[in-house]
Amino acid sequence: MTGLKDLYEYIDQHRDQYISWLQEGCRQPSVSTQFRGIDEMAAMVEGYLLKLNAEVQIVPTGRHPVVYGKILSDKEKTLSFYNHYDVQPEDPIELWDYPPFGAEIHDGKLFARGVADNKGNLFARIAAIHAYQQVYGELPVNIKFFVDGEEEFGSIYTHHAIENAPDIIETDGYIWESGYKTPDGALSIRLGLKGMLYIELRAKGANTDLHSSNAAIIENPAWRLVWALNTLKGTDERVKIEGFYDRVDQPSELEKQMLANMPLHEKEMLKNLELESFLLNLDGDELKEKFIFQPTCTICGIYSGYTGEGSKTVLPSEAKVKIDFRLVPDQDPDEIIVLLRKHLDKHGFEDITIHKISGKKAAKTDPGDPLAKVAIKEAEKFYGKPPQIFSMSPGTGPMYKLAAQYNIPAVSFGVGYEDSRIHAPNENIRIEDFIEGIKFICTVMHEYSLVNKGISVG
Amino acid sequence: MTGLKDLYEYIDQHRDQYISWLQEGCRQPSVSTQFRGIDEMAAMVEGYLLKLNAEVQIVPTGRHPVVYGKILSDKEKTLSFYNHYDVQPEDPIELWDYPPFGAEIHDGKLFARGVADNKGNLFARIAAIHAYQQVYGELPVNIKFFVDGEEEFGSIYTHHAIENAPDIIETDGYIWESGYKTPDGALSIRLGLKGMLYIELRAKGANTDLHSSNAAIIENPAWRLVWALNTLKGTDERVKIEGFYDRVDQPSELEKQMLANMPLHEKEMLKNLELESFLLNLDGDELKEKFIFQPTCTICGIYSGYTGEGSKTVLPSEAKVKIDFRLVPDQDPDEIIVLLRKHLDKHGFEDITIHKISGKKAAKTDPGDPLAKVAIKEAEKFYGKPPQIFSMSPGTGPMYKLAAQYNIPAVSFGVGYEDSRIHAPNENIRIEDFIEGIKFICTVMHEYSLVNKGISVG
Repeated sequence: MTGLKDLYEYIDQHRDQYISWLQEGCRQPSVSTQFRGIDEMAAMVEGYLLKLNAEVQIVPTGRHPVVYGKILSDKEKTLSFYNHYDVQPEDPIELWDYPPFGAEIHDGKLFARGVADNKGNLFARIAAIHAYQQVYGELPVNIKFFVDGEEEFGSIYTHHAIENAPDIIETDGYIWESGYKTPDGALSIRLGLKGMLYIELRAKGANTDLHSSNAAIIENPAWRLVWALNTLKGTDERVKIEGFYDRVDQPSELEKQMLANMPLHEKEMLKNLELESFLLNLDGDELKEKFIFQPTCTICGIYSGYTGEGSKTVLPSEAKVKIDFRLVPDQDPDEIIVLLRKHLDKHGFEDITIHKISGKKAAKTDPGDPLAKVAIKEAEKFYGKPPQIFSMSPGTGPMYKLAAQYNIPAVSFGVGYEDSRIHAPNENIRIEDFIEGIKFICTVMHEYSLVNKGISVG
Repeated sequence: MTGLKDLYEYIDQHRDQYISWLQEGCRQPSVSTQFRGIDEMAAMVEGYLLKLNAEVQIVPTGRHPVVYGKILSDKEKTLSFYNHYDVQPEDPIELWDYPPFGAEIHDGKLFARGVADNKGNLFARIAAIHAYQQVYGELPVNIKFFVDGEEEFGSIYTHHAIENAPDIIETDGYIWESGYKTPDGALSIRLGLKGMLYIELRAKGANTDLHSSNAAIIENPAWRLVWALNTLKGTDERVKIEGFYDRVDQPSELEKQMLANMPLHEKEMLKNLELESFLLNLDGDELKEKFIFQPTCTICGIYSGYTGEGSKTVLPSEAKVKIDFRLVPDQDPDEIIVLLRKHLDKHGFEDITIHKISGKKAAKTDPGDPLAKVAIKEAEKFYGKPPQIFSMSPGTGPMYKLAAQYNIPAVSFGVGYEDSRIHAPNENIRIEDFIEGIKFICTVMHEYSLVNKGISVG
C-alpha cells in the first residue's frame, strides 16, 4: 500500500471536489421507468468520462442508451466498470427528510435518490481514475466504463449495446456495480447472482364468483391451486419438479472455505425478525450453504376470492399464485418452465396455466479468478477485516448477459452500508465510505495490474 | 280451492291497496348495519299489525328490536310468520335504474331495496291476514308475526327476544321469510338451511415482508398455509378432519324421493358458468344429494404477499385463508373447530392459528311434517307444478336458534323470482308474484287449519 500513499493523500486533499461531482450527478434526476432526465444524465456521464480522456460512445440499445467510455493504452489487462446512471422513482416523496434530488449532506451522509444505487459507485470510480491519472499520469490497466441506462428498468435492452459496440465486452473482468460495508466494517463482496424464474400460476373455475353454497358441486380454483402447489414442494423444502436439481452443483472446496468465513449473524437476524429458528432448523455452514448455493421455490403472492375483513361466503372464480424460483448456475429458466409444465400435467393439473413473468440465468465468478482474489485480499488489508463474500447474492442485474455468458469474471462491491435504503426514501451513503471507496478502487486496479507480473497475489 | 274463491276475488279487487302498503314499506329505509330508519320501520310494522287487530310488542334484543304481533283466538293451531323489516345497504347506488327507496313500478315489477328480501313477503303476509279477516271475519288459526330487525346484520341478537317474550316461540310452525319462483313457474320451497362455520386460518413468518432471496433460509407462511390446507381436503373432495362426518346422516327415503323430483338444470347451469362438468364429474341424483345433503369445506379467500400486476420478489410475513364449512344437521360449529385444531396439531401445524368468524348450526324440517306437507301439496295445486324443494338450502338466517332448536318446523317460500337481485342493485319483485303470494299464504293457512280435522292432506 505504501506505493499508493501519494494517491490516497491526493484523494483526501481533493475530497470536496469529488463530493461535489457526486452531488452534481445526484441532482440530475434520471428515472428510467419514467423516461425522465435520461438524455441529460447520459450527457453528464459522457462529460465526466471525457474529463478522464476517455473515448466515449453513447451506444443505442433500443431503449435507454449505454454510455461506453474506454481509456486504452498499451496495457496488458483491461478492467471494466459496470455501473448504471438511472435510478428508481423517488416516491413516496413525503417520506423523505431531504429533497431526493437535493444531494444534501447531513451528519456525514449524502441523501439522494440513486446515491447508493448506483451513482455513488459510478462517481467513486470516475474519481478513482481521475485521481490516479493526476498522481501517476498513466493508468496501470486499460479501463472501460459500461454505464447502463436502464438497470432499474430490468436491463431488458442493455445487452443490445454489445451488437452496436462489440468491443464493449473485450475485457478481463468487471468490477460490478455496487455493494456495501457490513455493520462491523467489513466489505461485502459479491461474486455472482442467483438467476430467477418468476411465474404466475392460474386456476380457473366458473366464469363468475358464486355463492359458496355452490362449492358442494362446482370446482373451486383456490383448492385446485393449493393442491397443485402442494405437489411442487413439501415441508422438507425440497422442490419436487422432476429434473429441477439436475444442474445444481455442490459448492467447490474454495467456495466452502469462503462460506465458512462468511459471517451470518444468526442470533441477531432471528431476533430482528422475531423468529425462533431458521428454515428446517438449520444453522452454521448448512444454513449458509442453503442460503447461497441452493435454488428456491417461493410463493411471493397468492390470492383468490374475498380478502377483506370478516366474512364473505364466496366460491371464487379464479385463483393465482406468484412464484419465484431463485436459480443457480446452469439452471435455465426456460428449461424449468418446461419441467414445471410436465410436472403439473403428470399430477393431473393440466387445467393450471403457467404465465412467465421474467427469467434470468445465474452468474457466478470463480473465487479463484485473479480479479476476485485481488479484491478479496485487498479488501481485508484495506478495511482491516476479512470481507463478507457472497458467491451468489440476491439481487438482480444483467450479470449473466453481459459477463457470465462470455466467461468474463465480475466482482461486485461498493460504497453503501447497511442503512443505505436502496429503492426507499432517504437513500444515502456515508461520505467517508465514498472517499474510502475511491481509494479502494485505485488499490484494486493497481494490484490487479501486478498479477502475473511475477508478483503473487495469492 | 273453491272455498277461497271469494277471498281470491277480494284480493284481486284490493290489489292496489296491498301494493300501496308494500310501497309505503319499501319507501322507509331500514338499513340495520347502518342503524338507519330502524325505529321508524319498526313503528310502521307495528302500525300495520295493529290494523290486523294484533296485540303488538316491540321486543328488545340488545340491538334492533323484534316486532312481535299475535292474533290469538281459540284456534287449535298457531302459525307464525318469520320475516324481517331490515334491509341491506343500497350501495352501489349508481348502478340502480330507479331510486332504491322509491318503490317505483316499471313493466310490472316493483323496484326497491328490500322488496324481495324481505318486505314483499312481510307485506304479502300482512295483506293475506287482512284479506282473510275482511272476507271471513275470523282467522282459521292463531297467527304470530315474528319480525326481525337485524337479519341483514346476522341476527346475532334476535334470539334474545325469546327471553323478553317467551311465548314468541309457542307455535306449531313457521312460514319462514322468503323464497322465489323458478323460471318455469314452480314455487321453490326450502325446508331447512345448512349450518355454517366460517373461520380464518393464519400463518405467520418473520415480522416483516422480506426480499425473496431470504426464502432459502426463512420460513414462508404462504407455504405453511398451503401445506396445512392440503391436509384438510384432497382432490377427492373428502374433508380429512377426523370426526368431521361423524354426525352426517344419509337423507331419508322421503328426502331422496324429493331430491329425485327436484329439478336441477345441469346443462343450462354448466353452460351459464362455462364449465364442462360438475365437481367430481357428478350428475343426476348423486349431484343433487351432494349439493343438498353434504357438508363442505370451501376456500372463500386466500391471500399472502404481493398480489398486484407483474412481479415483486417478496417473502411474505403472513398468509391468511378464509374457509367456510357448510354444515348439516347435528354438526356443531364449535365441535368442528375443536376437531380442526386437533387435526392441525396432529399434522404439525401448531403454528397455524384459527380465528372463528361465525358459526351457525343447520336447521332441517322433516318433509313429512304437516305444515311442510300442506305447503308442498298446495304449491303444486296453486302454481300448477310440483314445487322445487330444498331440504337444506344455502343462505343464512336464525332458523336454528328460533325454530330447529325447539323442534319447531319451518317452511320457507316467498314472492321473489330468479331475477330478484337480492342484496344487489335493482332488487325487484314481479307484482303478479306478490298478488299470487298473498293468495297462496291464505291457502296454506286455510289448508293447514284443516289438518287433523279428519281431512287428509297427504
